[in-house]
Amino acid sequence: MEAREPYYAVIFTSRLTDNIEGYAEIAEQMNELAKQEPGYIDFESARDEIGISISYWESLEAIANWKANTEHLFAQEKGIMDFYSYYKVRICLVEREYDFYR
Amino acid sequence: MEAREPYYAVIFTSRLTDNIEGYAEIAEQMNELAKQEPGYIDFESARDEIGISISYWESLEAIANWKANTEHLFAQEKGIMDFYSYYKVRICLVEREYDFYR
Repeated sequence: MEAREPYYAVIFTSRLTDNIEGYAEIAEQMNELAKQEPGYIDFESARDEIGISISYWESLEAIANWKANTEHLFAQEKGIMDFYSYYKVRICLVEREYDFYR
Repeated sequence: MEAREPYYAVIFTSRLTDNIEGYAEIAEQMNELAKQEPGYIDFESARDEIGISISYWESLEAIANWKANTEHLFAQEKGIMDFYSYYKVRICLVEREYDFYR
């Protein structure tokens, strides 16, 4: 990932319901839409008891565009909303970062 | 969690080495130190291919104090550094949030 701070992170924390048939496909669609969006930087995700997915963006405008483009996915009859018993979204400004590679 | 934005998030993304004997104990120690720190709000973590741990804080000062208090853990002969092949730390200002409970 090439961005220098400041840039933005969208932290999506979630718990799934027991009814997740089709979830992986819709989650993949959302990621594909993100990657095509101008201003997209990177995506990271992990799940065990809870899921944490973080997308990184150059601007709030890019995040707003991605949200608009994914809203039809949320509006489907069997929409992505049915998969979640809980979720929380946080829009964050990444102010500083440092990393380590062995 | 009771905080209202703006507050801070420390996003810690990591990959483990194959040598993680004792890792769970040290990770737990770090979390315990965080919870005792003034200004601590919450902690979320998930791991599959990568690990994502996020701690939430009221201020940058609280984050700095926690970092200082955990540095002896990082400095141990068999320190926490040995467990990671990669990590990245991002200090973020949480500007907005919204959530959903079924």
